[in-house]
Amino acid sequence: MISAEKLYHGFLKIREERPLIHHITNAVTINDCANATLAVGASPVMADSPDETADMAAQASALVLNIGTLTEMSITAMIRAGQSANRCQVPVVFDPVGAGATPFRRQTVFRILDAVHPDIICGNMSEIKVLAGMKARTRGVDAGDRMDHAGKIARDLARRLGSVIAITGAADAVSDGRRTFILHNGVARLASVTGTGCMTDSLIAAFAGVLEDRLEAAVCGIMTMGLSGEKAEALLADADGIGTFKVRLFDAFSTLDAHDFSKGSVEDVRAKS
Amino acid sequence: MISAEKLYHGFLKIREERPLIHHITNAVTINDCANATLAVGASPVMADSPDETADMAAQASALVLNIGTLTEMSITAMIRAGQSANRCQVPVVFDPVGAGATPFRRQTVFRILDAVHPDIICGNMSEIKVLAGMKARTRGVDAGDRMDHAGKIARDLARRLGSVIAITGAADAVSDGRRTFILHNGVARLASVTGTGCMTDSLIAAFAGVLEDRLEAAVCGIMTMGLSGEKAEALLADADGIGTFKVRLFDAFSTLDAHDFSKGSVEDVRAKS
Amino acid sequence: MISAEKLYHGFLKIREERPLIHHITNAVTINDCANATLAVGASPVMADSPDETADMAAQASALVLNIGTLTEMSITAMIRAGQSANRCQVPVVFDPVGAGATPFRRQTVFRILDAVHPDIICGNMSEIKVLAGMKARTRGVDAGDRMDHAGKIARDLARRLGSVIAITGAADAVSDGRRTFILHNGVARLASVTGTGCMTDSLIAAFAGVLEDRLEAAVCGIMTMGLSGEKAEALLADADGIGTFKVRLFDAFSTLDAHDFSKGSVEDVRAKS
Repeated sequence: MISAEKLYHGFLKIREERPLIHHITNAVTINDCANATLAVGASPVMADSPDETADMAAQASALVLNIGTLTEMSITAMIRAGQSANRCQVPVVFDPVGAGATPFRRQTVFRILDAVHPDIICGNMSEIKVLAGMKARTRGVDAGDRMDHAGKIARDLARRLGSVIAITGAADAVSDGRRTFILHNGVARLASVTGTGCMTDSLIAAFAGVLEDRLEAAVCGIMTMGLSGEKAEALLADADGIGTFKVRLFDAFSTLDAHDFSKGSVEDVRAKS
Repeated sequence: MISAEKLYHGFLKIREERPLIHHITNAVTINDCANATLAVGASPVMADSPDETADMAAQASALVLNIGTLTEMSITAMIRAGQSANRCQVPVVFDPVGAGATPFRRQTVFRILDAVHPDIICGNMSEIKVLAGMKARTRGVDAGDRMDHAGKIARDLARRLGSVIAITGAADAVSDGRRTFILHNGVARLASVTGTGCMTDSLIAAFAGVLEDRLEAAVCGIMTMGLSGEKAEALLADADGIGTFKVRLFDAFSTLDAHDFSKGSVEDVRAKS
Repeated sequence: MISAEKLYHGFLKIREERPLIHHITNAVTINDCANATLAVGASPVMADSPDETADMAAQASALVLNIGTLTEMSITAMIRAGQSANRCQVPVVFDPVGAGATPFRRQTVFRILDAVHPDIICGNMSEIKVLAGMKARTRGVDAGDRMDHAGKIARDLARRLGSVIAITGAADAVSDGRRTFILHNGVARLASVTGTGCMTDSLIAAFAGVLEDRLEAAVCGIMTMGLSGEKAEALLADADGIGTFKVRLFDAFSTLDAHDFSKGSVEDVRAKS
């Protein structure tokens, strides 16, 4: 079991150690990812030139590869960074955004997986199904699939790829093939802000930069997003909408405390799956 | 005439149908465009690789092409997406940002117009004048021109290109060559936030994804921005400046209601023009 | 000495003249830079295609070159813009972001300096040390170095390069080789928002677009960021965190007044250095 104390301990460790989180991510949410990383006390660097990503990844505490927007150059940059991170034992978080949306995305996902071993893969149900070779319903970069059997799908893919698999959604499933958890925090409004998935990658990477256990890092990162969403929602007044919610979300990233973490809900489903 | 009820009906339809809005837009405002699209209930996807834009546009409900920042690659991506959208009858919203600012921009605008038929073109007076072959005063990407005769200019260009033309400014003119409207909503502060023009493209596209009538979609999109600006302005306190205004603008996108739409001011100028 | 009245006078001049500030900057903070520029009353344009940057820079009031994210294409774009600006006497603000982080960045910095003369160079201590050929401790794009002897380092490098040198940090040092100032405004929280350095470039450029004296422009730009940070901090309530602080920072950019500028602290260290 992962206790609230353990989660909060990891959170405090980020502020102490200020891990350097190298991102190669999409143009849409790059600013939010950098600010989310800073807000929890880590140090973001967003270099994406193929001429420097291997050097940058080698000195990072964790690496995020997110394919939200792609170019031939950014794919090269990701592969060089990922291989450098693998060589240097820097943990790699991979997000196959919109994996099934176009043939190009699907091919790119497998091209990256052929070249780089991700320690943690984080995506929505449609994206993870594409990786698992299952039939997926994708619509743009949003999930079209329900979260049925998420724990089992995460566990099976984790065993096959040797990576921690995190499936995010209304509930979230995380597995390393041996241990499987379902997380229940978060609010519906998180789906109405672009980049909450990408920022979750950043949070997972921040934890992976300070915690040995990759599964724990994934749980902590997803939990931090869920709890921050709940904290933000609780502060909204009547006239507030999605603009204020996003501001409050960043407030929460930077102010989460032990009391907030005590609300974390982690369900251990090893027995069931 | 386009009634407030009709406008609000279109707004509700976006939330019901969640149209997928494919954007190829600039690096400056891409996050705001995605969030504005989400805030009104549509689903944004921001893919801009030439390897996938035709596939993505084909499955979208509407396509936005915005040339705020340009590369040779993004031009190719736009042309492929636009041609795919034209083939699949997906409505195309084109924003010729800064059309007259440099020879390169001017050439690019006409290169895109040669290859793609936009259903709706949205720009400021200087940009539309460039398209119309009129003398324009451009300064960076801002309009240098006053809104004189906007209705007539929009109508004439709409007839020539067979596209709905929207000229945004202190007042806005929209025409399909047959019907011409002047819109009077909005506040001065909207010009002090970057990307309100680009977000208007997104809003127009969201409506074009659910309404058959392109002119109506353009009116609804521009009106939603104007009314949201008014709603945001009304909520400002003394210490608030442009930061809070932008937050309140997104709040408004996500909370506009029938009462807000009743303040919409659409002037029918068919008789006069 | 540079008086508060003089600083505020420059600030008002931006609103009167609305200088056009051409930016070639990074993907992370490009939206914030455009909004900061607008918030103080200047007009931003963010064109970065090599096919148009020379044309755009030629018509600008000031040019910002910021290497936060780099591609071979953006380097070409920067060099063409910078040379055009130099030819047209448009002031150039150069920010060597993360100069020592990778060999590629270090080489790029010197490649740009070989081709373009920056009127003002703005960076953190680690970055400026790289330019000065001193041993620097870089970690991603953050400074690893303390601000010891900042005034002397700025002065010496200013003399060698013939540029105004601004070193930003807990205190800031600015020198043109003859006059050297230490600025004491700002709050710690500014380091927890990504892009405050990049936005400082924009503010400096806005002042450089309306003031003849480059040193004064650098002092004014840095001072505007520091005072805005203080004004934002003063408005925070208990539940507020980094999200609200960033919103208040933009509020401050757009609402600074004579009273705020009276809190500016500029220490003249000519005698000492």
